[in-house]
Amino acid sequence: MSVDGKVLALSGGVGGAKLALGLYRTLPRDALMIVANTGDDFEHLGLAICPDLDTLLYTLSDKANLELGWGRRDETWTFMDALEKLGGETWFRLGDGDLATHVERTRRLAAGERLSAIMDDFRRRLGIAARILPMSDDKVRTRLDTDRGRLDFQDYFVRLRCEPIVRRIEFAGADAARPQACVVAALADPALRAVVICPSNPFISIDPILVVPGVRDALRACRAPVVAVSPIIGGKAVKGPTAKMMGELGLPVDAAAVARYYRDFLDIYIADEADRGAVAGLDLPITLAPTLMVTPEDRENLARIVLAAADRVR
Amino acid sequence: MSVDGKVLALSGGVGGAKLALGLYRTLPRDALMIVANTGDDFEHLGLAICPDLDTLLYTLSDKANLELGWGRRDETWTFMDALEKLGGETWFRLGDGDLATHVERTRRLAAGERLSAIMDDFRRRLGIAARILPMSDDKVRTRLDTDRGRLDFQDYFVRLRCEPIVRRIEFAGADAARPQACVVAALADPALRAVVICPSNPFISIDPILVVPGVRDALRACRAPVVAVSPIIGGKAVKGPTAKMMGELGLPVDAAAVARYYRDFLDIYIADEADRGAVAGLDLPITLAPTLMVTPEDRENLARIVLAAADRVR
Repeated sequence: MSVDGKVLALSGGVGGAKLALGLYRTLPRDALMIVANTGDDFEHLGLAICPDLDTLLYTLSDKANLELGWGRRDETWTFMDALEKLGGETWFRLGDGDLATHVERTRRLAAGERLSAIMDDFRRRLGIAARILPMSDDKVRTRLDTDRGRLDFQDYFVRLRCEPIVRRIEFAGADAARPQACVVAALADPALRAVVICPSNPFISIDPILVVPGVRDALRACRAPVVAVSPIIGGKAVKGPTAKMMGELGLPVDAAAVARYYRDFLDIYIADEADRGAVAGLDLPITLAPTLMVTPEDRENLARIVLAAADRVR
Repeated sequence: MSVDGKVLALSGGVGGAKLALGLYRTLPRDALMIVANTGDDFEHLGLAICPDLDTLLYTLSDKANLELGWGRRDETWTFMDALEKLGGETWFRLGDGDLATHVERTRRLAAGERLSAIMDDFRRRLGIAARILPMSDDKVRTRLDTDRGRLDFQDYFVRLRCEPIVRRIEFAGADAARPQACVVAALADPALRAVVICPSNPFISIDPILVVPGVRDALRACRAPVVAVSPIIGGKAVKGPTAKMMGELGLPVDAAAVARYYRDFLDIYIADEADRGAVAGLDLPITLAPTLMVTPEDRENLARIVLAAADRVR
């Protein structure tokens, strides 16, 4: 398979998906391959839930709920209301339309299909030309050692709203997980145009992808430029616990720390104009850009800046 | 447990649930125990679906969709629409609120709970004082030998809309199924006020209950009057394939044939005034009544007639 002119993006959920959408709208229709974090995946109510994969699926098919920042737009909540009356667990909100993705995925997984095959079918059915791949078809689960004990990811993230202090993060199952062969092949292909590390949380969105055996090595050996976009803007996270977590893990809370965290494979760093001072001392090519993505145009602008920066180095 | 003044009803779905509701509204709050057919139950999309139990649950908690004749009122269909776009199976319609019952039941069954315990919790949470019991916690599945081959019940009933010609009906798993102990105990209790066979399909709604080992014998030995309400009105079924099936199985299509079908345990038969001629030759007490239940008042009226007929014989 040729990957001539292809771009490989590594992404978590919301923030990453915004840039992924910008790339998708900017690049030729089938040039984008997105590798999604599945460390957040979990079983809930007997259903296989893959938050980051679904955020990418909904975002790229224009079904994302922009008001909520998660889930689907034009969503209804009849299931959740009825579940509450039956005494079911309601701390993790599942919209009625969203539920179709989980129920159908769970059914197909139980029938023996691979997660990557199911998601590939879903994205085609929703009219998405880009590939959306789980980082592995094997189960990897992010767990956090915190001041309130060892927590499953969604317990920490949703139920406890990221309140516990994180001491250490582990990725259960990562050692035995196999990467997607097409991702490893793409990284080794001399025709690859660029690798984009989306502005996702480095510790809980990008690290799970990197710890899948073979991925980090392939990224280090990759001849295409590896560009990361800072998830820190003006010394703060746009959304989510990135900044809080950096402090808890003993890192300086600034845009430069993220670039240093990726130093073994990073070629170019895109930081916000607000962080000019913070990234001044880094010894790799820096591009300053407006990285806050509010409108669809913001996403495409940032995508164009990322691609231009990559093409300059290549 | 005392069943003094208690009434035990055997019921299938819609038609049976109408009379069950009438009995529930007529009797003292906790006097009714309903045994539901679970031969229609099936696994669909990985979910445990119990159509008759749920029809009773929704009907008695005033959540039934009276326009559709099945499912819940104030229902939304976002799940089904989204499932269709993902290429999922949509021939069996699952509303968003209805789905909560299936998902939560499936989760609790997988956790090792008995169906009867789950349904008992559901009916309490929905404020129903009557007991609603599956005929067995063991799996019994109605299958039909037809001119189009051997069919699972819902394939015949929903997907093929009862079009195939039925030659024989079997209840897979019935031999090994255990009845509910409290039902057998209630049938043996001299204080039981009455047993009511609701106007459900004798072959696919009542027979599955009767074939659970011990139930038919307990019914024959029962000292309380056993009253059946005819599902045939004016020589026709109100809804569903009862009349068509009677013809296919070689029975005369009339109200008397149903009474004869129940002859080994039946004490009183309630037939519609329109079937006066058809039931004239039966050698058991007959009560003629308006058996078509359209309004809530119709249901309570018929319930009162059924109870009065039983009390007269007792």
